[in-house]
Amino acid sequence: MGKGRLEAFSDGVIAIIITIMVLEMKVPHGDDLAAIAPLLPVFVSYVLSFIYVGIYWNNHHHLLHATGKVTGGVLWANLHLLFWLSLFPLVTGWVGENHFAALPLALYGGVLLMAALAYYILQKAIIASGHGDSLVAKALGTDLKGKLSPLFYLAAIISTFFATWIAEALYVVVALVWLIPDRRMEKVLNLK
Amino acid sequence: MGKGRLEAFSDGVIAIIITIMVLEMKVPHGDDLAAIAPLLPVFVSYVLSFIYVGIYWNNHHHLLHATGKVTGGVLWANLHLLFWLSLFPLVTGWVGENHFAALPLALYGGVLLMAALAYYILQKAIIASGHGDSLVAKALGTDLKGKLSPLFYLAAIISTFFATWIAEALYVVVALVWLIPDRRMEKVLNLK
Amino acid sequence: MGKGRLEAFSDGVIAIIITIMVLEMKVPHGDDLAAIAPLLPVFVSYVLSFIYVGIYWNNHHHLLHATGKVTGGVLWANLHLLFWLSLFPLVTGWVGENHFAALPLALYGGVLLMAALAYYILQKAIIASGHGDSLVAKALGTDLKGKLSPLFYLAAIISTFFATWIAEALYVVVALVWLIPDRRMEKVLNLK
Amino acid sequence: MGKGRLEAFSDGVIAIIITIMVLEMKVPHGDDLAAIAPLLPVFVSYVLSFIYVGIYWNNHHHLLHATGKVTGGVLWANLHLLFWLSLFPLVTGWVGENHFAALPLALYGGVLLMAALAYYILQKAIIASGHGDSLVAKALGTDLKGKLSPLFYLAAIISTFFATWIAEALYVVVALVWLIPDRRMEKVLNLK
Repeated sequence: MGKGRLEAFSDGVIAIIITIMVLEMKVPHGDDLAAIAPLLPVFVSYVLSFIYVGIYWNNHHHLLHATGKVTGGVLWANLHLLFWLSLFPLVTGWVGENHFAALPLALYGGVLLMAALAYYILQKAIIASGHGDSLVAKALGTDLKGKLSPLFYLAAIISTFFATWIAEALYVVVALVWLIPDRRMEKVLNLK
Repeated sequence: MGKGRLEAFSDGVIAIIITIMVLEMKVPHGDDLAAIAPLLPVFVSYVLSFIYVGIYWNNHHHLLHATGKVTGGVLWANLHLLFWLSLFPLVTGWVGENHFAALPLALYGGVLLMAALAYYILQKAIIASGHGDSLVAKALGTDLKGKLSPLFYLAAIISTFFATWIAEALYVVVALVWLIPDRRMEKVLNLK
Repeated sequence: MGKGRLEAFSDGVIAIIITIMVLEMKVPHGDDLAAIAPLLPVFVSYVLSFIYVGIYWNNHHHLLHATGKVTGGVLWANLHLLFWLSLFPLVTGWVGENHFAALPLALYGGVLLMAALAYYILQKAIIASGHGDSLVAKALGTDLKGKLSPLFYLAAIISTFFATWIAEALYVVVALVWLIPDRRMEKVLNLK
Repeated sequence: MGKGRLEAFSDGVIAIIITIMVLEMKVPHGDDLAAIAPLLPVFVSYVLSFIYVGIYWNNHHHLLHATGKVTGGVLWANLHLLFWLSLFPLVTGWVGENHFAALPLALYGGVLLMAALAYYILQKAIIASGHGDSLVAKALGTDLKGKLSPLFYLAAIISTFFATWIAEALYVVVALVWLIPDRRMEKVLNLK
């Protein structure tokens, strides 16, 4: 199977996920600041999740770029990743509606953790299929960010039992770590 | 008509179906385990339906790969399949919200049955159009899974009158049967 | 502007329209026949609208196939068509929820009428742009179905003031007229 | 990174945004004019937003047409634009449900303003990446519409404190300014 349709399908699913998250922000009843104030925490969680889904789309794009033929194993590993990404709107809305309470924050971290593991499995499946570029294996070997992120999510989940602000800070930090160095790395690559 | 736009349109519809199913899991009110517990059965039914839609996307992809020109008959047979797939979110939500009660489970099986028949009709339409690869006719002839699945769905629908766990087990078994051997078959094909 | 991205965008919008219509069928509360009975009229209206949107997608595909470069006028004529198609889920749900009452049926016909006019304008815009195949102008000249359909919709709208079953019958008849001869015409074309 | 998948992803997101806006028009309960009357202001705001999103899709298309390789900076500038566009359904629904009250109108203008700034940043990012056509820089230099629009949005936001009809008029005027001259410009280009 060529990868074209897998890319197109993944793009479609991710585009829908990133857009329906906004549906969790219900149109408020009333036309004053008091009516819109409850939307603020949902908005903040939406911004964070938008960035996370954007990072996944970006990385997914680069990963498939370095992939040749798509086997059944890769296809299902990809669907597995999309499954966990599809839960982002739900946990994003739950975190926002409950003003960043402990349990929703822990579940949010759980979905982030599962998505990170699913992405790791997808990389492994591509390498195992024998159709992955040597770059995939090399990138996976030195992928410090990819290996540390799950530990950070785990730390965030545990921290929700003590202080929710630690979990919030960790989710923001990991997003920034993924967001910023990608652009620096790119400049390095362009200098070559 | 070329098949490119038919594939793209089908991909779009299936991507939307698989993603809006998650909208049936409403953001719970409250931030404790009691608030999220009612979501569990909906989550389980979501996982099952996600796998079923994934299987259909996978098979649909392979089927159209072996198809040349698309006639009006094939186009409408394809829309007919998409119609039944579009009902997955509704019956998935209904099964989950009612904790796998008899009637929702029977209706779930009914939609699975109609989708299986629609897929069969699509295969027949492709062969009848004369633009199908000889592989389509050959695959259809030996497609034991495709021929037995409707019988299993029928058995599941009938079993809901006696014991709902039989229907649940049958839906899971059929999904696994489709999920697992695809990968084994692929290995066989790769050995050639 | 090439037509590729216009086709892809239109496909995306139509795929979403045809799929979110099903969201108007809300998951019923309760697990017996009484709970699901109110869904039946919504289901019937969904089937009809699914066929109408399928017809539009099919015709739109053939129309753009015979179109070269896309001008700004064609682009906006296309968006105008998508606008009226985007109202299908709303009027479909309204017709179904009110068991085919007079006013919803009239509004349903109004949206069908506007979509038909928008399709006519799109054809005219393509011809006026000078980038349409000569087939477009020829097809438009002899397009009896395209010219009579708006009159039928108009008749259906007026009939809702007297007897709603006339409007219902007209909507079904027009859909069938579009559905069936397309396949016959195609056979004629294939015989050549 | 090639721009193909960025275009496809953006098209997907914009197609979903333009379509789910219609979901803010809830199916009314009741089958008379009184039931549907409350939908009218939501419908009017939907028409306006549909035109704005259509303008963005059109301009986005032309901008990426004049762009070569896509860098990480461009990718995130594009996601930033999609983020603000994704808020259109929310503010559109809020404006409509509150019959064009002051605060919703101001917020609507705020989202228009941020989307305009995001579009400006995207143009700058494309030029900075060095992969933009010289046309992009030239178009940006003489882009009077692009430079004045944010000022009009700002004026509209401020005017909501005094008279909401000024804001309404400004939003309509800016949409028309973008809508009409695009076609005139195109004719000029075709005359060359």
